[in-house]
Amino acid sequence: MASFSIMKKSLLKIWPSLLLVPIISADASFQPAISCQDLARSLHLNNATIYFAELVSAGSNITFPDQHETCTTKSVVTTSDICRLSFSIATSTISTVNLEAWLPLNWTGRFLATGNGGLNGCIKYPDLAYGSSQGFAAIGTNNGHNGTSGEPLYNNPGSIEDYVYRSIYLEATVGKQIVNTFYDRPHTKSYYLGCSTGGRQGFKAAQDFPEEFDGILAGAPAFSMTSLFYASAQPYLYTGKPGDPTFLTEDEWRLVGEDMVKQCDKLDGVLDGLLEDPELCQYRPESLICAKNQTTGCLTGAQVETVRSVFSPTYGPDGKFIYPRIQPAKDMPFAYYLSGEPFAYSTDWYRYVVYKDPSWDPATLSPADWPALLETDIHNVATWKGDLSPARDAGTKILHYHGLEDTVITSENSARYYNHVSRTMELTSAELDEFYRYFRISGMNHCRGGNGASIIGASGDNLDEYKPDSNALAALVRWVEDGVAPDSLLGKKKDANSSQVVMSRRHCKYPKRNTYKGSGDVDSADSWQCL
Amino acid sequence: MASFSIMKKSLLKIWPSLLLVPIISADASFQPAISCQDLARSLHLNNATIYFAELVSAGSNITFPDQHETCTTKSVVTTSDICRLSFSIATSTISTVNLEAWLPLNWTGRFLATGNGGLNGCIKYPDLAYGSSQGFAAIGTNNGHNGTSGEPLYNNPGSIEDYVYRSIYLEATVGKQIVNTFYDRPHTKSYYLGCSTGGRQGFKAAQDFPEEFDGILAGAPAFSMTSLFYASAQPYLYTGKPGDPTFLTEDEWRLVGEDMVKQCDKLDGVLDGLLEDPELCQYRPESLICAKNQTTGCLTGAQVETVRSVFSPTYGPDGKFIYPRIQPAKDMPFAYYLSGEPFAYSTDWYRYVVYKDPSWDPATLSPADWPALLETDIHNVATWKGDLSPARDAGTKILHYHGLEDTVITSENSARYYNHVSRTMELTSAELDEFYRYFRISGMNHCRGGNGASIIGASGDNLDEYKPDSNALAALVRWVEDGVAPDSLLGKKKDANSSQVVMSRRHCKYPKRNTYKGSGDVDSADSWQCL
Repeated sequence: MASFSIMKKSLLKIWPSLLLVPIISADASFQPAISCQDLARSLHLNNATIYFAELVSAGSNITFPDQHETCTTKSVVTTSDICRLSFSIATSTISTVNLEAWLPLNWTGRFLATGNGGLNGCIKYPDLAYGSSQGFAAIGTNNGHNGTSGEPLYNNPGSIEDYVYRSIYLEATVGKQIVNTFYDRPHTKSYYLGCSTGGRQGFKAAQDFPEEFDGILAGAPAFSMTSLFYASAQPYLYTGKPGDPTFLTEDEWRLVGEDMVKQCDKLDGVLDGLLEDPELCQYRPESLICAKNQTTGCLTGAQVETVRSVFSPTYGPDGKFIYPRIQPAKDMPFAYYLSGEPFAYSTDWYRYVVYKDPSWDPATLSPADWPALLETDIHNVATWKGDLSPARDAGTKILHYHGLEDTVITSENSARYYNHVSRTMELTSAELDEFYRYFRISGMNHCRGGNGASIIGASGDNLDEYKPDSNALAALVRWVEDGVAPDSLLGKKKDANSSQVVMSRRHCKYPKRNTYKGSGDVDSADSWQCL
Repeated sequence: MASFSIMKKSLLKIWPSLLLVPIISADASFQPAISCQDLARSLHLNNATIYFAELVSAGSNITFPDQHETCTTKSVVTTSDICRLSFSIATSTISTVNLEAWLPLNWTGRFLATGNGGLNGCIKYPDLAYGSSQGFAAIGTNNGHNGTSGEPLYNNPGSIEDYVYRSIYLEATVGKQIVNTFYDRPHTKSYYLGCSTGGRQGFKAAQDFPEEFDGILAGAPAFSMTSLFYASAQPYLYTGKPGDPTFLTEDEWRLVGEDMVKQCDKLDGVLDGLLEDPELCQYRPESLICAKNQTTGCLTGAQVETVRSVFSPTYGPDGKFIYPRIQPAKDMPFAYYLSGEPFAYSTDWYRYVVYKDPSWDPATLSPADWPALLETDIHNVATWKGDLSPARDAGTKILHYHGLEDTVITSENSARYYNHVSRTMELTSAELDEFYRYFRISGMNHCRGGNGASIIGASGDNLDEYKPDSNALAALVRWVEDGVAPDSLLGKKKDANSSQVVMSRRHCKYPKRNTYKGSGDVDSADSWQCL
C-alpha cells in the first residue's frame, strides 16, 4: 500500500492551475515541533495503521500509483513544503478508511478537512494540495472504500457508515490529533471543503457534528441523496436506447441546449449565453418540432415528449415531490443521463445497498421501487435535516454554492434546501445570513467548468488567486475569523489558451438574482446587480 | 316549465355591458320566412317538446323564473328583436336536454351554438343575448340537467352523456334545422362560443364533431377534465380547516398574491401589477417567513409549506404528471380552493359519477383514488385528444384563449394542450396557425374580469365593441369568412365607474410572450410587443 512517487516539476505544464503561490503574509506561521518521520512514531491513534510519513518539497509532482485505477486524479503538484502522512483506520472488522494528511511546514494554524465525489472511494488530492498550499493542515479520506463503484458497500454496513458520515467525522477528529502532535499546539480554526458528495458530506457535518468545524464550504451538494439517486435513474427510462423513437443523439441534445438558452437567456436582462436564474426557464421544446419536409435540426413529437419528461421533476407513488428537474442549461448532461445507459450511482445504490442484489436491473425501475429506497436511508444518508440550529449554535458558518450549469446535480435542489431550512427554522434570509449563505454560480458546471465566470477558488480544481474578494475559501476564512460575511462571490472566466481573465461576475447570494444593469460590458462584473 | 317574463328596460342600468348596438352593416340580412308563433307548429324535431316560441322586442329585459335557483343569471336584456324558442329533447328514458334558440329577425345567416360552465345545468343566456344581438341565430342548452350540482348525473348515464358532449351536438344539429325552418334557408357559417366547461365543450366538438362548426371560440377550457377534478381536490388537503396550523386566512392569501406579483412582475419588463407570462413565476413564499418578534404581515413555516404545496403540480401514483399548478396571480383563488372547504365539482364528480356514493368524503382523497377517476372517463370527458386533424381537415378554425389571472382553471393547462397538439400532430406553431391559435390574456380572471385589459368580447359577460380588431368573436368570424387570422387579441380595461377605457393591451398568440418595449405608457397596447 505504501508505495508512492514524486516527480519534481515534470508535470507543471499539465497542471498549471494547481501552482499556487501561498499567500500567508497576514496569517500566523507555525512550524512543526517534530520531524515528519518522527510524526509516524509519535502518533497514538486507535485502530490505526501508519503507511508512511514523508517530507515533500514545494514544486514536487506527486503521483498515486496505488490508488484504485478508477480514481481520476493521477498526479498533483504541491506548492508548499509538506509532511505527507498516509494511514488507515479500521472502522469495523471488515471496513477501513484510508486517509492522508498534508501538513505544511509553514502552517497558518488552520485545519482543513476535505470531501469526496459520487460513490467514491478516492482521496481528493487536488483539495489537499490546495489547502496545504495555503497553509492549512489538510486531510482527506478514501471515504471508506477504494474506487468509484458502489460495489464495496455490498454487505458491508461499516463501509456504508463510513460513506454516509464516518470518514469525515474521523478525518476531523483524528486530523486534529495529528495536527496537535505535529505542531505541538491545537489548530486555531477548523474548516471543511467539498463539492458534490463532498457538498453532502459538508452538510452532514453541519447537521450532525457542526462543532467539528468553524466554517464549511459546500458545493453542489448531493443531499436529499436517496431522492437524487431515484430521480437520476429516471432519464434513462424516458430516453430509451439509441435508435428508439424516443431517443435523442448527443447532437440533438446539443440542439435542445442551444434552443433552451435562446428561449430563456433574456430573462436576466441580456443575451450572453448564460442563465442567471435557470429556475425561471420554462423551456418549450415544441419549438424544435420538425416542419413539413424538414429532416435536420429538428425533433419528432416523440423526441420532444422525451425532452419534456427529462425536464420534469420527479414525484413518488404517494403523489409527493421527490426531486427537482434536471438543470436547464446549454450543455446537456448527455454523458450522465441521456446516453441511453442507466445512471451508475443509482444502479449501484439499489444493487449494493437497497436490494443487496447485484443482478438488479435498472430498466425495471418503477415508482414501486421508491419506498424501498426511502426506507434504506441508513444513518440518514439523505442529509436533509432542515434544522441547522446545532450549526448556528456552534457558531459554524456555512458557505454553500451551486453552479447553474450543473449537468449532474441540479442547482434547483440547493435552492430547495435553503428554503427548507428557512421554513423549518422559521428564519428570514436576513436571519439565515448570520450563519448560512447560498450562492448561485452562473456558468458553472458540476463543481467547476462551464461557460461562465466559474473560477471561484472553491476547490483544488477551481483556482485562481487566494483573496477573500475572489476566492470562496478565503471568503469563508474571513467570515469565520474577521466576521466579514460575503454578499457575493466574484467569479472569473479565463481564456483557455492565454489564461487571461475574459469575464468576471459577482455571483449573488440567494434569493437575489443577478440582473444586467442595462448597459456596460456584459463580461464585466460591474455591469450586473443582485436584485 | 314554460312560464317566463319580460320586463322591458327595467334592469338596463344593472346590465349596461349587455346593451350592444348591433353592427351588421357589412353583413347580409335575412328575415324569417314564417312568424315566431308558426315556428313552433312548423318544427318536426325527434323526441322534442316545444314549450313556447315568442317574439321579444329589442330592449326587453328577460327574466328566467323557472330556471334552477342555483343558476346565477337572473335576467338579460336583448338588444335585437328575436324569436325566442324554448323546447326540450329527450335523450333517453330518464334524461332530457332543455334548449333555447334566440333567432334574430335581422339575421346575418350565421349560426352560433353556446356552452355551459362548471357542472351546470344552466342555459348561458348572456351568450344567447350576445349572439342574437350581433345577428347570429343563437342556441343554448341546460347541458342535460338543471342547476349547478352534479347530483342529477347520479345513476343517469343519459345525463352524463348529455353533459360530456351530446347537448352541444344536439344544439348544433337541431339548431340548424330550426334555422332552416324559420328563415327557410340554411345558415351560411356555423360558430361555437363557450368558456370554462364551455371551453371544454368547444374542444370536444373540435376533437369529435368539428364538421358542425366553421369556427370555435373556446376560453379557459376545462379539458383534461378528470385531471382537473383530481387536481382541484388537492388544495383542500393541504390547507386544512380554518384554525389549523397549515391554514391561511383570506387576508394571508392576499399577502401571498401581492408578494407573488412583487417577485415576478418585472419578468415581462415592467412593474405594472400584471404578469404577462405567469409560467415564468417560480414564486418563493419563504420571503414571507415571520422575522423574530414579527407577528403580522408574515407567515409561519407551516403556512409557507402550504403555499408551496398549493402551487405544486399534481402527480399520480405512477409518478406521472396529472395537472399543472394553480395559476400564480395577484388574486388568490380563496373561494374556490383555499377556504378550507372541498372543491364542490370534484366532490360531486366522485360522488355521483365515479363512485356512485353520495356519502363519499372528499377528505379521504388520496392517490389511490386517481385510477378510478381516470377509468371513469365516460365518453372521453377528459377531452384531451391531441390530434385535431379532423378539425383541420374540416376547415374548422379554433380560437382558444385563457386568462392569466384565472383563479379556477390554470392557464398553464391551456399551454399544455397547445403543446400536446403540436407534439401529437407534429406541427410547428406556424403550421398550427392555419387552423388553431391560442392567446394568453394577461389580467383576465376566469373567462372575464381580473386586473388587466380583459375585455375581449369573447362572451356575453365580456363585451365591448363588436369589431374584428378588438373582439374575439368578430375576429373569429373574419378568420373563417375572410381568411384574416388574428395575430393578437386587443383587450381593454374600463374604469368601473366611468366606463372609460383606462388600459389596452394586444394579447399575444402563444408561444409568443408580451414584453414591455422599455418606454411608453404602460397602459397603452402600443408600448408592448409579442416576442
